[in-house]
Amino acid sequence: MSQIVNRRDLDFLLYEMLDVETLLGHPRFAAYDRSAITHVLDTAQDLAEEIFLPIAALVDANEPRFVGGRAIVPGETAVALRAYADAGFFALPFDESVGGLQAPWLVHTAVSGMFTAANISVTNYAFLTIAAANLLNAFGSAELKQAFLPKMLAGDWFGTMCLSEPQAGSSLADIRTSATEIGDGAYRLRGSKMWISGGDQDITDNIVHMVLAKIPGGPVGTKGISLFLVPKQQLDADGSPGAGNNIQLVGLNHKMGQRGTTNCLLSFGEDGDTIGYLIGEPYRGIEYMFHMMNEARIGVGHASVMAALVGYRHSTDYALARPQGRPVNQRSPESPQVPIIEHVDVRRMLMSQKAAVEGAQALCFYCAMLVDRLAIETDTTERSNLSSLLGLLTPVVKSWPSEHCLEANKWAIQVLGGYGYTRDYPVERLYRDNRLNHIHEGTFGIQGLDLVGRKILGDGGRTLERLIAEIRATITKARELPSLREDADGLESCLESLTVAVDALRGCDDAVIRTANATIFLDAFGHIVIGWMWISQAMVSSHAIASSEMGESDRAFYYGKLRACRYFTRHELPLAITRLKLCAALDDSCVVGTGDDLKY
Amino acid sequence: MSQIVNRRDLDFLLYEMLDVETLLGHPRFAAYDRSAITHVLDTAQDLAEEIFLPIAALVDANEPRFVGGRAIVPGETAVALRAYADAGFFALPFDESVGGLQAPWLVHTAVSGMFTAANISVTNYAFLTIAAANLLNAFGSAELKQAFLPKMLAGDWFGTMCLSEPQAGSSLADIRTSATEIGDGAYRLRGSKMWISGGDQDITDNIVHMVLAKIPGGPVGTKGISLFLVPKQQLDADGSPGAGNNIQLVGLNHKMGQRGTTNCLLSFGEDGDTIGYLIGEPYRGIEYMFHMMNEARIGVGHASVMAALVGYRHSTDYALARPQGRPVNQRSPESPQVPIIEHVDVRRMLMSQKAAVEGAQALCFYCAMLVDRLAIETDTTERSNLSSLLGLLTPVVKSWPSEHCLEANKWAIQVLGGYGYTRDYPVERLYRDNRLNHIHEGTFGIQGLDLVGRKILGDGGRTLERLIAEIRATITKARELPSLREDADGLESCLESLTVAVDALRGCDDAVIRTANATIFLDAFGHIVIGWMWISQAMVSSHAIASSEMGESDRAFYYGKLRACRYFTRHELPLAITRLKLCAALDDSCVVGTGDDLKY
Repeated sequence: MSQIVNRRDLDFLLYEMLDVETLLGHPRFAAYDRSAITHVLDTAQDLAEEIFLPIAALVDANEPRFVGGRAIVPGETAVALRAYADAGFFALPFDESVGGLQAPWLVHTAVSGMFTAANISVTNYAFLTIAAANLLNAFGSAELKQAFLPKMLAGDWFGTMCLSEPQAGSSLADIRTSATEIGDGAYRLRGSKMWISGGDQDITDNIVHMVLAKIPGGPVGTKGISLFLVPKQQLDADGSPGAGNNIQLVGLNHKMGQRGTTNCLLSFGEDGDTIGYLIGEPYRGIEYMFHMMNEARIGVGHASVMAALVGYRHSTDYALARPQGRPVNQRSPESPQVPIIEHVDVRRMLMSQKAAVEGAQALCFYCAMLVDRLAIETDTTERSNLSSLLGLLTPVVKSWPSEHCLEANKWAIQVLGGYGYTRDYPVERLYRDNRLNHIHEGTFGIQGLDLVGRKILGDGGRTLERLIAEIRATITKARELPSLREDADGLESCLESLTVAVDALRGCDDAVIRTANATIFLDAFGHIVIGWMWISQAMVSSHAIASSEMGESDRAFYYGKLRACRYFTRHELPLAITRLKLCAALDDSCVVGTGDDLKY
Repeated sequence: MSQIVNRRDLDFLLYEMLDVETLLGHPRFAAYDRSAITHVLDTAQDLAEEIFLPIAALVDANEPRFVGGRAIVPGETAVALRAYADAGFFALPFDESVGGLQAPWLVHTAVSGMFTAANISVTNYAFLTIAAANLLNAFGSAELKQAFLPKMLAGDWFGTMCLSEPQAGSSLADIRTSATEIGDGAYRLRGSKMWISGGDQDITDNIVHMVLAKIPGGPVGTKGISLFLVPKQQLDADGSPGAGNNIQLVGLNHKMGQRGTTNCLLSFGEDGDTIGYLIGEPYRGIEYMFHMMNEARIGVGHASVMAALVGYRHSTDYALARPQGRPVNQRSPESPQVPIIEHVDVRRMLMSQKAAVEGAQALCFYCAMLVDRLAIETDTTERSNLSSLLGLLTPVVKSWPSEHCLEANKWAIQVLGGYGYTRDYPVERLYRDNRLNHIHEGTFGIQGLDLVGRKILGDGGRTLERLIAEIRATITKARELPSLREDADGLESCLESLTVAVDALRGCDDAVIRTANATIFLDAFGHIVIGWMWISQAMVSSHAIASSEMGESDRAFYYGKLRACRYFTRHELPLAITRLKLCAALDDSCVVGTGDDLKY
């Protein structure tokens, strides 16, 4: 089986669960029908399997080097990204008006997933370029767009996001990089930026940095932050890269995983002028960034799912092939050993991976569909509803996989035993790679604050109520199927606990106590959302089984969905209830005390 | 604060909770009083901090190399182990009659813990040598002991354990290495051994392998396995290393962590005769190995705790020093940033580490105390009770830390954010190192089978009942303290769920269903045992607070215990109940189906 994608499951998500064909009826997506999408996915799978996957271990083992003030990466990285560019994947989700291929975000998500699965370290360069181009496209002046966007969509120049600084990671209010106007929309930038993925590389002859900085004299805190485009090389009169822009690579960070992506400490304006160009209006930098945040966070969550998907598929292959031990009811040492998938605890380890991977993947696609619906919806109320629903689900889609798909990667290693702990197999690398997703693009804790503070309490719980109503509607339909009653009841119980916990948080006027429960709440809420995705998949599968003749593999596929849903109902949903009870009690066990008790 | 040990907590465990002084009253330990023990611990801490800790990153970054058929390790490894040997630590737990220092196993555990914390990769060589020497000492002939034991106790020759083979990891019944008698207790060995830690190295001029092999014609399966001592170099007439014994280093495994310990594929008798010597009687190899298993498994669990302890201390230090962001109720960007320990979610991440580390450490010491009590107990019934209690706790002490202290290491990284993901800080290495403990010395799943099958159902639940009675006695005493009532009630509820689950498993005559629930049961049972350790620590602390004047740091220490106990009661114990309910329902969600549903 393919290590990087389950095409059957992709088809299931797109055409059976989410009904992408309704979306395709819209003029915006006129160029895409099922056969066109299949063609795009085939091309992506071929490239990902043939060019990206084979160099995943290589770029892990041969980290970027700091040579003569530049970051040098293995040459294979450039070859892979050139092929990606030539296939049009940088341009895939962009409007035709700016030279894009105007594909649904769902299709872009499916494509990105395969590349991320094959080789996250190399794919990151494309991911960041698309994010930067997206930002430029949304808020940049016509002149800036004309100068930079075509090069980025062609994959000739890569982009980066420069937010963090050494002294300000999660706390952007405290960034110090300054941007002083020098006329004509140009600014002189000065400061340091930390954790910049792709911040330097020897792949493209220019790099387009999207930099958050403060214009001296502006408001304090995040309200004083503006967004600038800062190229590594200034452009000549003909638009080609000219003189250097005095951005120094101060150092490379050496990471546990995702080692093929350079991660840089950059210094602006230290050794001569660094010139940048204001994007949009002054002081709106954070607002612009947040505009792009949903897609970026879906992307991070999806990357986490993909690491787990590869681990799941790899460990399943291994469990099918590796003979070891005997069934518990047939222990005679003279009987032959059996493939370890016959051992029920190995099946549990595979099932827990399947439940995490396919549950979370469904959520990623559901959120991508919301992005597409937003792109074509014209009704204001409906747009607002879609937007707030996407906003509510974003902390979940970003963070649930980073926790539970990381856990899946842990079990993938476990299935392989000692072999899984060696670098001869990809599962240990996937575990290392995936650990980052808990941290970047807003840590797990930050997502909890966002969910509870901004997304639930912030709008008086209205969006949450709409989501609960949607989940209830699914439960009601699932109850009509006797085989899903246990699952429906399980999810219903969770909703009751959810309501109690939310009421408690709403009734609590102590911000510290609310915050103390936010991360636990996020985790439990994520379980409910994933449980909803599972029961949705189980319903579709149950109807398919009842309504049509099918081959053996299709039958096994649908039964697999039913079983994974049941596994999730029994093994995972009750944990959500337990955690929600803790939140409902407004737990203060980490609040009391002075901190001294943690020191001794 | 020290990165590798909390001496205050060691004193608490030894003198306040476990009352080691009663043990010291026995003639066997006449050489040890509190001041002697303090001296030993001081020496160990100095060596561990000054010699082992500073090279931990170095041996991680410079893996063993395969050169000319040998494994070459960084020279610093030998220097550190020489210092360890010179301080007498190889000999520490052995009887004076064989040249040991006859320290309580508790003291050996405390000493080992500091070295493991400082540098597990280097300490592994000592750990394995002590285990091999222990085996030789218990079952070897006087002649073999005389020839090898003094060299091992002096740290001149290291030992290894050769159990697994490429085709037989967890399934020892299927090993193929053969041992053919050639007279005088000598055997010719042939076969391959996989995953051999310390299997080759350039530190010592001989290596003493303890090898499981089958004498041709013997019983099939594990009943046909015997134990052999197989030196890397044959001994000359004067007892010094002579001709090579034809053990080939076929390859080195490249691991995710614990990289400073060589991990080898060895081949015996491929290129000339490999001569080994039978230990004890034929066909009793597995029995002998199991005799040593408790100590070895406590050691693995303890190593896992120590990785988490270092992560906990490091992330606490970081959280105290790193300014970032502002309290949720004081967000003005003009106010100064606060150390991140002020953020309640950071405190939660530290508290969860503390709860795992100090809960599991207490269990390690409790088990070590049982080893000591066994060594001096003469009453047959009491010996049998101690032995079966230790047997019951062994799968827990081995596996609970490998899961929950690994989780603690995950949170240590999280506290450091992006910095934690880089190799500039030790926390990512600790996470990689710790991942092995889930796998080796019996995987997590194997421990579940051992617990449910052998240790609980195997003796009709008698040992478990005795343990439950002990836990109940603790609960009763805790209830007398109003401040611990919530914790006592929480643990009591767990015991009720435990009883229901055990009854269900006992009443189930389907071995597959029992097995399907074993790992979940192990995890939940582990929570109860750790909960017991917490309430025991809280009781001692509560009495200390009530009964004496104390300084600020002592007060903070005791209150820290109370708070961590409360955290465990609220955040962790309810999860055990949830999981026990799943077991009580004899969950079959991973049993049904053909396995095909995992393939598509």
